[in-house]
Amino acid sequence: MKIDLNSDLGESFGRYQLGKDSEVIKLVTSVNVACGFHASDPDVMAQTVAAAQAAGVGVGAHPGYPDLQGFGRRQMKLTPLEVKHLVMYQIGALQAFTKDHKLHHVKPHGALYNMAAKDHALALAICQGIQQVDPQLPIYGLAGSELIKAAQEISLPYAQEVFGDRNYLADGSLVPRSQANAVITDPPKVAAHVLEMVKTHAVTAIDGTKVKLQADSVCVHGDNQAALAIVAYLRKALTQAKITLQTF
Amino acid sequence: MKIDLNSDLGESFGRYQLGKDSEVIKLVTSVNVACGFHASDPDVMAQTVAAAQAAGVGVGAHPGYPDLQGFGRRQMKLTPLEVKHLVMYQIGALQAFTKDHKLHHVKPHGALYNMAAKDHALALAICQGIQQVDPQLPIYGLAGSELIKAAQEISLPYAQEVFGDRNYLADGSLVPRSQANAVITDPPKVAAHVLEMVKTHAVTAIDGTKVKLQADSVCVHGDNQAALAIVAYLRKALTQAKITLQTF
Amino acid sequence: MKIDLNSDLGESFGRYQLGKDSEVIKLVTSVNVACGFHASDPDVMAQTVAAAQAAGVGVGAHPGYPDLQGFGRRQMKLTPLEVKHLVMYQIGALQAFTKDHKLHHVKPHGALYNMAAKDHALALAICQGIQQVDPQLPIYGLAGSELIKAAQEISLPYAQEVFGDRNYLADGSLVPRSQANAVITDPPKVAAHVLEMVKTHAVTAIDGTKVKLQADSVCVHGDNQAALAIVAYLRKALTQAKITLQTF
Amino acid sequence: MKIDLNSDLGESFGRYQLGKDSEVIKLVTSVNVACGFHASDPDVMAQTVAAAQAAGVGVGAHPGYPDLQGFGRRQMKLTPLEVKHLVMYQIGALQAFTKDHKLHHVKPHGALYNMAAKDHALALAICQGIQQVDPQLPIYGLAGSELIKAAQEISLPYAQEVFGDRNYLADGSLVPRSQANAVITDPPKVAAHVLEMVKTHAVTAIDGTKVKLQADSVCVHGDNQAALAIVAYLRKALTQAKITLQTF
Repeated sequence: MKIDLNSDLGESFGRYQLGKDSEVIKLVTSVNVACGFHASDPDVMAQTVAAAQAAGVGVGAHPGYPDLQGFGRRQMKLTPLEVKHLVMYQIGALQAFTKDHKLHHVKPHGALYNMAAKDHALALAICQGIQQVDPQLPIYGLAGSELIKAAQEISLPYAQEVFGDRNYLADGSLVPRSQANAVITDPPKVAAHVLEMVKTHAVTAIDGTKVKLQADSVCVHGDNQAALAIVAYLRKALTQAKITLQTF
Repeated sequence: MKIDLNSDLGESFGRYQLGKDSEVIKLVTSVNVACGFHASDPDVMAQTVAAAQAAGVGVGAHPGYPDLQGFGRRQMKLTPLEVKHLVMYQIGALQAFTKDHKLHHVKPHGALYNMAAKDHALALAICQGIQQVDPQLPIYGLAGSELIKAAQEISLPYAQEVFGDRNYLADGSLVPRSQANAVITDPPKVAAHVLEMVKTHAVTAIDGTKVKLQADSVCVHGDNQAALAIVAYLRKALTQAKITLQTF
Repeated sequence: MKIDLNSDLGESFGRYQLGKDSEVIKLVTSVNVACGFHASDPDVMAQTVAAAQAAGVGVGAHPGYPDLQGFGRRQMKLTPLEVKHLVMYQIGALQAFTKDHKLHHVKPHGALYNMAAKDHALALAICQGIQQVDPQLPIYGLAGSELIKAAQEISLPYAQEVFGDRNYLADGSLVPRSQANAVITDPPKVAAHVLEMVKTHAVTAIDGTKVKLQADSVCVHGDNQAALAIVAYLRKALTQAKITLQTF
Repeated sequence: MKIDLNSDLGESFGRYQLGKDSEVIKLVTSVNVACGFHASDPDVMAQTVAAAQAAGVGVGAHPGYPDLQGFGRRQMKLTPLEVKHLVMYQIGALQAFTKDHKLHHVKPHGALYNMAAKDHALALAICQGIQQVDPQLPIYGLAGSELIKAAQEISLPYAQEVFGDRNYLADGSLVPRSQANAVITDPPKVAAHVLEMVKTHAVTAIDGTKVKLQADSVCVHGDNQAALAIVAYLRKALTQAKITLQTF
């Protein structure tokens, strides 16, 4: 058994610093690098890709909506074609900074990820954008979501992503952050949550329902010390359970 | 004898339309496509690249300063490293829209082109940015300028560019637009100017000096009907002089 | 009887020209001036305000979403507080260019206008933003919409706006542009539509229902010659019907 | 004897936090609030102005070049008219968030401040922009610089600014940051430097020359704990020397 741990990386911008990139990069197997639309700039991208490739982790593009002020977390109603093009643009821009101009994966960011998880046309536009740039380039999408279905539909490689620090609803979607029980912050509980998903191919939703899902990659965070502590704990728990930490 | 005719293309942005792209594309052999920093957006880039590749012209990236309001024509004092990275970013972004992810050339835009023509560190940064993305990708630079010298220095392929509608100073630089005799608007004079450069490998500066230069590509414009008329006239004059119009 | 004719103005940006500003300004009594978020820039704003004040028309602010590429026409999901602040920012910015730092009105633009017409919290945020800058500054909002209700709720002055070139649904909202009969292009039909609204305080919806509404201002367009012809025809029809064209 | 202490404030942007605003605001008498071009956004501006007005400090606008990535520190070559307009825009935008729509002063930011200190046309454009919005609104400019001369020329109120943590050249300009002795970091030395300027109306340049200058306001920083420690030390030294800390 094996699993990939992914984290967002390279979210600084100009003089603005964000995230504990040098620490989280040692704890994960792949990273999602911001591409200048919701965060980052060409200088940050160059540094981030260099650091990530030196660390040997899988370097993925993390395209988002063109909304620096909102950090790509505010919904924007773009046409599928507009979304396809902004995904292609951001993938290409990031690729230019990699050694062999190959990326490991693409993971949509923030509102784009969340909206596409439920909107098939949007999900399909993202997958088609990726495929047009590189048909071998996998998408990371919420397990069981429209992103995965769209990838399957056009035979784009994909990794199903799960969240160790988020509770699930009975339909396999995440409990919205507006609800009190959305987030899990206790490291042992996060680890148990992930182990259940990896080992049983299912998750217990907040109503007790067992929801089937495939866990190819776990999303973790490196924003602060508490987040890093969760990742460190999770790594240990996975290793003890003989689950190999390995890039997808 | 042969020559390339290049023109800027794809300078529209969102709802804003600019340039007679569909007409000029029929008259040139290569195009410089804006990459979203000084003009254009991912949708315009997708359409422009598709149209240019359908027309069979050489598709080049046209990276500029991050200044939409100033159309990349206002000088910005960036470090060479910042310039290297913004060139890489824009090349990568445009490449994503081409069929085989290969570009024909890169031509810096506006203030970036003009500043780099005289600033060796800046010129070198641009050439290194191009080389890091694709060592086979030629740069278009003002004939005899620092851009050409920097390309020679690092063995980056290059095309020396001349201007049919601009007069030259004795040092091989263009007469600044602030001077009355900077621009040539009469089609026969433009054609004679170009023919002199292509055939004699020299240009007569405004003080009568003969300045040696190599003409690999002529920059032409498609902004308006008068500009298009000049290109049409020039094409005819070149063809009559048995000079082949051919992508560099 | 009197009516105000308003038109968007000052939508150019940098090198990009848009709209027949100098022509439409002669035909209307008030203008909505873009403030740099969905269109325009400080230079265009300075020129536009100067021209509008010289022409004696009412100068209003036209705040929009921060989306130049989408021209403020793409929905963005911002919090009411974010909307309040971006409205205040844009009003203040435009005010700086007026002679006595007083504006005539504020009209939200594009997606902001349309979303607020149906979303009370958003409408209230806009009205509160205006009121905080200047409690005497009227808002222009779709007749009978949430924008008008929010203004009434906090005692902000308002003008109810009607559309001569758009058909109405039975609930007083506009027929969406996605439907075939959304837009009226025949000048006499536009004029009859406006005359009905101004004189009878009602509009005949597409299903034949008579919908009551108050018409304080008619939105007209200056994008092209056809639009200008409609405005010219409408002016004549209103004058012949003894309706005074007058700034609200 | 009295002196004003001013500090930049409100330089956060979206999710990006910068500066110890709540601490520095207690130590100074006036603040320069970023206006969204080189830093900040409408939400940060609303919060910053509210906090500054609650603290009773003088609230000034801090307009900069439109360059978020470069934090307004990169030179841009704009025309004087473009500069005038972007100053007016930013002043107006900030004014909208103040209680009575009155600002205390305007201080240009970063590259705009430094370039205008030496460029009369630029300095004049800034002063004219301020004057057009509010002829009573003082400019803060480097003591003895072109900004002060331009203000005098058009009778705009002004405060001459000095730097406690920067050494001076014999011509009254600051030692460039590229030189080793540009910055003073020892709190007692900073205090002695300021006391000399305030009490003797002169500063000892690095070559020993005594340069006459008028010190109306001292620029201090709140970026980090070391900077705050300097301000706290300086306040104490000034108070002990019976110099009143007071808004200009």
